[in-house]
Amino acid sequence: MGLNLAQKIIKEHLISGEMTPGSEISIRIDQTLTQDSTGTMAYLQFEAMGIPRVKTKKSVAYIDHNTLQAGFENADDHKYIQTVTSKHGVYFSRPGNGICHQVQLERFGVPGMTLLGSDSHTPTGGGIGMLAIGAGGLDVAVAMGGGPYYMMMPKVCRVVLKGALRPWVTAKDIILEVLRNLSVKGGVGKVIEYAGDGIKSLTVPERATITNMGAELGATTSIFPSDEVTREFLKAQGRENDWVELKPDEDAQYDEELVIELDKLEPLAAQPHSPDNVAKIRDIGKLKVDQVAIGSCTNSSYMDMMKVAAILKGKKVHPNVSLVIAPGSRQVLTMLAQNGALADMVAAGARILESACGPCIGMGQAPATDAISLRTFNRNFEGRSGTKSAKVYLVSPETAAASAITGVLTDPSELGEAPKVSMPEKFVIDDSMVLEPAPEGADVEVVRGPNIKPFPINKALEDKVNGKALIKVGDNITTDHIMPSNAKLLPFRSNVPYLAEFCLTPCDADFPKRAKENGGGFIVGGSNYGQGSSREHAALAPLQLGIKGVIAKSFARIHMANLINSGIIPMTFENEADYDEIDMGDELVIENARDQIKNGSSIVVKNVTKGKDIKVNVSLSERQVEMILAGGLLNYTRQQNQ
Amino acid sequence: MGLNLAQKIIKEHLISGEMTPGSEISIRIDQTLTQDSTGTMAYLQFEAMGIPRVKTKKSVAYIDHNTLQAGFENADDHKYIQTVTSKHGVYFSRPGNGICHQVQLERFGVPGMTLLGSDSHTPTGGGIGMLAIGAGGLDVAVAMGGGPYYMMMPKVCRVVLKGALRPWVTAKDIILEVLRNLSVKGGVGKVIEYAGDGIKSLTVPERATITNMGAELGATTSIFPSDEVTREFLKAQGRENDWVELKPDEDAQYDEELVIELDKLEPLAAQPHSPDNVAKIRDIGKLKVDQVAIGSCTNSSYMDMMKVAAILKGKKVHPNVSLVIAPGSRQVLTMLAQNGALADMVAAGARILESACGPCIGMGQAPATDAISLRTFNRNFEGRSGTKSAKVYLVSPETAAASAITGVLTDPSELGEAPKVSMPEKFVIDDSMVLEPAPEGADVEVVRGPNIKPFPINKALEDKVNGKALIKVGDNITTDHIMPSNAKLLPFRSNVPYLAEFCLTPCDADFPKRAKENGGGFIVGGSNYGQGSSREHAALAPLQLGIKGVIAKSFARIHMANLINSGIIPMTFENEADYDEIDMGDELVIENARDQIKNGSSIVVKNVTKGKDIKVNVSLSERQVEMILAGGLLNYTRQQNQ
Repeated sequence: MGLNLAQKIIKEHLISGEMTPGSEISIRIDQTLTQDSTGTMAYLQFEAMGIPRVKTKKSVAYIDHNTLQAGFENADDHKYIQTVTSKHGVYFSRPGNGICHQVQLERFGVPGMTLLGSDSHTPTGGGIGMLAIGAGGLDVAVAMGGGPYYMMMPKVCRVVLKGALRPWVTAKDIILEVLRNLSVKGGVGKVIEYAGDGIKSLTVPERATITNMGAELGATTSIFPSDEVTREFLKAQGRENDWVELKPDEDAQYDEELVIELDKLEPLAAQPHSPDNVAKIRDIGKLKVDQVAIGSCTNSSYMDMMKVAAILKGKKVHPNVSLVIAPGSRQVLTMLAQNGALADMVAAGARILESACGPCIGMGQAPATDAISLRTFNRNFEGRSGTKSAKVYLVSPETAAASAITGVLTDPSELGEAPKVSMPEKFVIDDSMVLEPAPEGADVEVVRGPNIKPFPINKALEDKVNGKALIKVGDNITTDHIMPSNAKLLPFRSNVPYLAEFCLTPCDADFPKRAKENGGGFIVGGSNYGQGSSREHAALAPLQLGIKGVIAKSFARIHMANLINSGIIPMTFENEADYDEIDMGDELVIENARDQIKNGSSIVVKNVTKGKDIKVNVSLSERQVEMILAGGLLNYTRQQNQ
Repeated sequence: MGLNLAQKIIKEHLISGEMTPGSEISIRIDQTLTQDSTGTMAYLQFEAMGIPRVKTKKSVAYIDHNTLQAGFENADDHKYIQTVTSKHGVYFSRPGNGICHQVQLERFGVPGMTLLGSDSHTPTGGGIGMLAIGAGGLDVAVAMGGGPYYMMMPKVCRVVLKGALRPWVTAKDIILEVLRNLSVKGGVGKVIEYAGDGIKSLTVPERATITNMGAELGATTSIFPSDEVTREFLKAQGRENDWVELKPDEDAQYDEELVIELDKLEPLAAQPHSPDNVAKIRDIGKLKVDQVAIGSCTNSSYMDMMKVAAILKGKKVHPNVSLVIAPGSRQVLTMLAQNGALADMVAAGARILESACGPCIGMGQAPATDAISLRTFNRNFEGRSGTKSAKVYLVSPETAAASAITGVLTDPSELGEAPKVSMPEKFVIDDSMVLEPAPEGADVEVVRGPNIKPFPINKALEDKVNGKALIKVGDNITTDHIMPSNAKLLPFRSNVPYLAEFCLTPCDADFPKRAKENGGGFIVGGSNYGQGSSREHAALAPLQLGIKGVIAKSFARIHMANLINSGIIPMTFENEADYDEIDMGDELVIENARDQIKNGSSIVVKNVTKGKDIKVNVSLSERQVEMILAGGLLNYTRQQNQ
């Protein structure tokens, strides 16, 4: 039986597991990328692993998120990432060089390789035929250290693009149509693989717009074949040698299929507040627009910008509209500055922002109260723009530019003939803002600002695990309880000791103090402990406070995985009624902990205070048992590399 | 006896007073400007005056401070300013059009006119021969309403520039040399008037660099003659008709004189943390530099930018330096985008920021901890950059660009031959981002976001003024006690009702509540009440709470003026021991208040609770008496305009 493209790349990189949808596999990672808001922690974790040099084919660290730099923390993070990457063999893309996904596509993406990135829009690389997956910082740290990436084998959904787009209809409209069809949950556990005669007419950046926003389907990733179009793009980037042809086997099988007839599409918008709330511009009508924002990793390529410049040329932005444009990379910005397109944008009244994520992640350009904002971005969740009452519509660059001129939501086809813009035969190539790492063994001082604290690291599991029940909480405790996240705490993501001072404080203000005074201990929880956001910090903060185990009625899946990654034992009561047999302050002990955990899922926790044995389950895969014994994923990976 | 230039313009605009240094004069204002961080309050105050249309020759509102837009408040403020100015006859310079002082110089400055601006760097206009003065928002509001501007008649200090600058030495080095000579207090109560054969070789933007940073001398303003150089500049801006020749009389007298021999100057820097802590670059030595920032109202002209671009062309920014460049106006940005200079900057590795104040006011680009930052700005106060431990050096654009390349503080003459850049014969003229106001009487809806609240306005003084002593505080209460200002409260500068909830709370958390419950009353203070920052809000918040008078042992001068502006009676105990005769909660009354205040400085406050008369002084000028009777400066101005 033939393989589809996703399966081919997975097979090529498979380390362990069966390629049956839903079963755990692990794959080898060729390239990694990080951005600065997740990267700081990823490199702290990498450092903690004690591996001197990354083992990937290429790892790149980008600075594109925190570029406003309202306080010293951002510049400190940049400096830390610059120096730590230099020391350990990672390329460093300086602030101003552009958005990670755009730059990665232009300069580093290689068809057929795997890319793991600590950013959910890493699938952008699928536009060039990579298997490009977004993951947490620790996963990326492990991959940099040469460890495999564990995931569920995905189903593969083929999206067949038929025919060709009509003028003024764009790649953005294709992915909006896919979202309209599949919804924001439609991609969960799947790779979206594009096929059909329609893909021939799509450039690599257009394909990347589609795979980028595939993240909004909840998909593992999205991917296009690597064909002549890919080769032309790589050639124009001076990287023809990176090209290989990639396509599914003739008799490839797919789990699902969706057909989209391109010539029937028309300009679309995702309406507030979800990327799948899609309607035709024509049907939405002439909404008065307050702000238009063009850019982000979804739509900031040279081609996008040239079309926008052509639409704006000789026109003026409507007096009631604030138009901001952020070209996606320094390559794009340089070319626009050289060929006059940037001057056309400025002359029309556009505000030019730095090449970075900017308003897409709420970093500036918050709209006015109740404002309508058209954005070429990928997400329009309520409040993400920085203004809770704002209404954000996701549209193509062409729709955005047309509406900026008219002041109302406008189907760009009303402007007459569509601009003709062709791919350059040669992009401007200048990688001088990507710093090469120092040679192996060079003496590089890693600069750590006062807000960057060492990352907590567990020890190998001891034979006797003991301590007090430091807190006892009820059902449905969320990660927001365990590790609150708000504007006040967000700049401290690199400072776990500080964050730990707020651990579980929504439940009990004294918990951090008590935990430290007792040198750590246990948490006792109810059902569904750790639901909500997937943040790693909800395990890191307890680890910082010396928590050795959590005994609960049940766990939320991701939080349990994070506890295991931190080497904290997740235990569930065999008999839920035993929840009542532990009170706060009780002295607990697990004797022969290593043997008990090695030998099976059922182990005994002694409540010394009450003189009672409590049976708990520790349901771990073989790999997870090793992780707990090693004291977490970092130590485990360290062992694997010795 | 002949007049100097400053005296000539003052005489031309004099409304009242004697032109004797130190005596109060009032002058007619031709033009006003506001920026957005002070402008919102200024327009609220203008609205409160009830004058339908501004009476100046030209008033312009700029958006250049809060352009990062981290929350809805900024965009709301922009929208409010756009609509309120349209309604009342003020031109509106949109965000992205540039820094107020740069744009005003390019497009609106007229030699010989007076300009009052709600920004301390308004003296930039002196470069084109305006008498351009920075003032508070209320002063500007009054001037827009046709009211005179009151000030002390300044002394005039002549600074004679002899000879010509050597290559690589710049206008910035001239003003740094003046600061080195006169210090940051050296200009207080003075106008700095430039003269000598050396001025001929300085372009208008260079002169503007010097007058701009004259604010750091504490000077009332600085001014250059209007000559052929001025005419050429205005001609290149398509405004030759605005030119008039302006020079001092041959036998003009000056109060002071300073001579600077230009050919003896060399590149200078103001070292941390004061603009007058000036030394030669050569003497400071090769400091390792972390950040270089080029721009701000001091050094962001076309000529500055072209020189920077020429220095950067074909070079690369040092890997350890973050170079940010913000061209000063859309005119400058457009020209750089058209002629390739911007492309040269980007190619060298510069990060291009929006044309706005940006890092100069701490809006982004905070340096890393302990970082050394070279900036072409005008202020290097500790912490102003957003990073308390950063060390900011103020330098010329040439020094900045040279150091960005080498990575260490560098005398630019080390680079060899200085770039030759000449003034364009014609600037790119496109005022489309300056919106004309609506025609008089047009129906304009003023849009007020939820954070923009009506401005409190007092009533005419009643004959019987009574109420409780609502709080009694000790000596040396600062405006930080009266109206705390911090990051949490700063976005609420347009929301006095909200701010009032924090009035005097550092002294007594219940004060706002008590004041409101009692319908207002009195504050009793000790010596030096109201010292510290000049913020108007320290009078506006008490006004909002219904405070009718403050009785203190003594007042700080500016706060007392602010109280009078708000129509709150400032009273000092004739006998300081009477401070002990009032306790919190005592019922106080001033009978025949209007007559008592009209008739002299000594008035009687009855302490009804204690059955005791207390003599207090109310020391007011005639004009201030009228202001108190009218219920503050706004009502007074309103009356004058009826």
